Amino acid sequence: MCPNDTHPASGAADAVDSAKPGPPPAAALIEDLVVANHILFDQGVVDAFGHISVRHDKRPDRFLLARNMAPGRVASEDIIEFSLDGDPVNAAGRRVYLERFIHGEIYRKRSDVMAVVHSHSHSVVPLTVVKGVRLRAIFHMAGFVGQGAPVFEIREAGGDATDLLISSNHLGRALADHFVDHDIVLMRGHGSTVVGGSIRQAVYRAVYAELNARYQLQAMQLGGEVTFLSEGESRACVQNVEGQVQRPWDLWVEQARARRNG
Amino acid sequence: MCPNDTHPASGAADAVDSAKPGPPPAAALIEDLVVANHILFDQGVVDAFGHISVRHDKRPDRFLLARNMAPGRVASEDIIEFSLDGDPVNAAGRRVYLERFIHGEIYRKRSDVMAVVHSHSHSVVPLTVVKGVRLRAIFHMAGFVGQGAPVFEIREAGGDATDLLISSNHLGRALADHFVDHDIVLMRGHGSTVVGGSIRQAVYRAVYAELNARYQLQAMQLGGEVTFLSEGESRACVQNVEGQVQRPWDLWVEQARARRNG
Amino acid sequence: MCPNDTHPASGAADAVDSAKPGPPPAAALIEDLVVANHILFDQGVVDAFGHISVRHDKRPDRFLLARNMAPGRVASEDIIEFSLDGDPVNAAGRRVYLERFIHGEIYRKRSDVMAVVHSHSHSVVPLTVVKGVRLRAIFHMAGFVGQGAPVFEIREAGGDATDLLISSNHLGRALADHFVDHDIVLMRGHGSTVVGGSIRQAVYRAVYAELNARYQLQAMQLGGEVTFLSEGESRACVQNVEGQVQRPWDLWVEQARARRNG
Amino acid sequence: MCPNDTHPASGAADAVDSAKPGPPPAAALIEDLVVANHILFDQGVVDAFGHISVRHDKRPDRFLLARNMAPGRVASEDIIEFSLDGDPVNAAGRRVYLERFIHGEIYRKRSDVMAVVHSHSHSVVPLTVVKGVRLRAIFHMAGFVGQGAPVFEIREAGGDATDLLISSNHLGRALADHFVDHDIVLMRGHGSTVVGGSIRQAVYRAVYAELNARYQLQAMQLGGEVTFLSEGESRACVQNVEGQVQRPWDLWVEQARARRNG
Repeated sequence: MCPNDTHPASGAADAVDSAKPGPPPAAALIEDLVVANHILFDQGVVDAFGHISVRHDKRPDRFLLARNMAPGRVASEDIIEFSLDGDPVNAAGRRVYLERFIHGEIYRKRSDVMAVVHSHSHSVVPLTVVKGVRLRAIFHMAGFVGQGAPVFEIREAGGDATDLLISSNHLGRALADHFVDHDIVLMRGHGSTVVGGSIRQAVYRAVYAELNARYQLQAMQLGGEVTFLSEGESRACVQNVEGQVQRPWDLWVEQARARRNG
Repeated sequence: MCPNDTHPASGAADAVDSAKPGPPPAAALIEDLVVANHILFDQGVVDAFGHISVRHDKRPDRFLLARNMAPGRVASEDIIEFSLDGDPVNAAGRRVYLERFIHGEIYRKRSDVMAVVHSHSHSVVPLTVVKGVRLRAIFHMAGFVGQGAPVFEIREAGGDATDLLISSNHLGRALADHFVDHDIVLMRGHGSTVVGGSIRQAVYRAVYAELNARYQLQAMQLGGEVTFLSEGESRACVQNVEGQVQRPWDLWVEQARARRNG
Repeated sequence: MCPNDTHPASGAADAVDSAKPGPPPAAALIEDLVVANHILFDQGVVDAFGHISVRHDKRPDRFLLARNMAPGRVASEDIIEFSLDGDPVNAAGRRVYLERFIHGEIYRKRSDVMAVVHSHSHSVVPLTVVKGVRLRAIFHMAGFVGQGAPVFEIREAGGDATDLLISSNHLGRALADHFVDHDIVLMRGHGSTVVGGSIRQAVYRAVYAELNARYQLQAMQLGGEVTFLSEGESRACVQNVEGQVQRPWDLWVEQARARRNG
Repeated sequence: MCPNDTHPASGAADAVDSAKPGPPPAAALIEDLVVANHILFDQGVVDAFGHISVRHDKRPDRFLLARNMAPGRVASEDIIEFSLDGDPVNAAGRRVYLERFIHGEIYRKRSDVMAVVHSHSHSVVPLTVVKGVRLRAIFHMAGFVGQGAPVFEIREAGGDATDLLISSNHLGRALADHFVDHDIVLMRGHGSTVVGGSIRQAVYRAVYAELNARYQLQAMQLGGEVTFLSEGESRACVQNVEGQVQRPWDLWVEQARARRNG
């Protein structure tokens, strides 16, 4: 009952730096990662929890992720470099996210993935817990959801008394295995993780996965048969609609700046 | 998987100017179109996507529409003139919306239409994908919805592997055909398009179509029979309630200005 | 199809002053009525439409109501005095609400009523159109809803081709008849009207009627039997909970001032 | 029908001070309690109603609670000290909450409880009134909800004509009895009460109880079987996830300050 700041399953969140940092990442990459944190908060994808990482632009075996804090408050000095094992290399004692293993193991599994968003966005959570129901692409903005997102059931890899957190490389690998044929994976009783070829694409997908979930929840309540995107439509939407990812990004950056500069 | 800034089905969104611009439209028309963009964003009808056009006041074979950008950020210098074929005449290299064909083909089909709004507003999308369900006028503010809005199924005109976008004159015409007896048409897995006799009326209808959809979704979940407006009631509401379109417009303009002047 | 600023069923909304104004109402009453307009907008009960009136404190056969405008923008100079027939006495050519007859006829019917709110709040509208479903008190803040609010069906008094507006004394009386045993009446395909012994009580009830509707919509979707308040509970809640009406009023006034003073 | 500022069942809310105050509580405790009031309002857990108390840090037989006012407006000078009987000791004539008995009786029953939140948050209320439905932990942030929160039915202790308020020590004890094996109790037709080992934990739980309810309402509408947390998962989540309670607290404090300082 008594809250506890350390996490038994994953070792302490105050992890010790395991190696030397790589060459400094491009300043623009850090800047994008910081504003991506703010956007995910502003757009309601994350609250105090959830995180976004990017693969290091000079060392593909490293990734960048904020220290343990609310995304809406992240600044450039809060970004830490990690190995794919989830070990920080320049934390200097700062606390890190319990679930950093999500990121490292996906980057290891999928060399094309450049950014990862983990969140508990509001309409996605209900779709993780209903037997026989899968998130599926319902409108053209979310073709990347495809013909049915897999649901990661942590009981299979971790037993039925876990805290549902991806707090070890073992659990990270079990989750990453679901990304072989998919760009979004739901996590039962928890949330979802979505990947992209860039920060902007991953942010775009996190926002529109939530909207797809919201529309699907509403459509399914009407009782009639729901027409989802066909496989061909999903693919075409990814090709063409996601070519416009800069448009929402520009808007969201402007909103993020306006909110923070008052 | 790799995002792509050009659009194969419609030719590049960087369309080449096809003709000379007409005489300059009235400054008040441009001003209304700009604030209409802001209102649609403020009122939640559009996010970074969706658009509103107006027929050129001096050349009925031309229409005005913003360049490819989020509506909430549009300024007067972003407005471009188009032919009814959807070709820009003064884009000067600026990127244009992939779906400009929606606007041109409707103006061609319906000479009484002076403004067109295309959006993916939140409660409308679910009503585009459920078999046997049609958006129908449920309250007096939305008489224009009438006795059941048609749902445009792009598979009929474009096959089952499109990106769902109205990215050609062919698809634009197929959509416009649904407007013969209707002022709003839903688009499966996509959103809706609504028309009006003025910018103010089209904005009004876009806002209240979303509310009608929201109320209909909720009413249908209760299981009992729903009483929709009769045909006579729908007509009377259009005649009388829409006579008050200036009231919300004044409020929305005030809100749009307050938000932008901070 | 062409919008029309006058209203055929009720005569012009530019009504001619019919009599001399009474003695000036207390300044505090006007001030309360103005801030009540702002509160109803801030709290989401009204948008550009809907209105609140108060009975004249020195002439019980008169009431005070804003001119035809969005409630969120009302200032003290916009308040007009009306006879119970709905005729303005000091409009001086300003346009008035089409539905002023709601207010006059209720004040005539119920001498204990001092304030009336008419609105189309979001969760109430769906509950006006489903056969066999009635708004009923579901929690202690809304005891005034009682054992089932009546639904006014305008077709009974006005036929099946009206614009649903209460645009005449005849329709106003038909609506007012439903208030004999009730303090809130739903209006099919339109919204609701709620009364109170003071501006503060009527505003309180308008806000909590919307919440009661929202909770009832959600509870009814779960399929199980819903426990509503008993008749004794409803009465006790009105007696005791509504004794605290000053608490939300103080909060709402503070919010209304903060929003308007930036 | 006439509102009444005193409460017959509980004696006047203008309670007379019954004893001498204890030694002054730590300034930081008062400060936390004040900001907790603001956070609960900002995060949508309370509106003008609802309250949070903390056990006195120097006298475990006393607790601290604001005077009768909206939580969002509470300042340090509004905090009053109470005995566990719910009698104020330094109200000096200020009006107190009718339902202060909730707090005293829970502190008496559960010596480990240091903070109590009572609210009517939006998604919880519907779950208090449907037969056969219980709030249950659906995601990892809300393990404290456990395997089914009890619903307090006031009719058992107070008959079927109460105002549903916990306005006496008798009713407070009947409610407190439900907390023996639970940290959250729903109250039929009313709301809920949640306890914690600190202000921060109680606030965290009040926020995430609302989200759990929201997700559960949505999941149950899909018709399929819902997978809730197992008993072991619930326990592990309380142990580990609630160890991170400082993260949302820091965010919420920042938001509360920003909103109040403009």
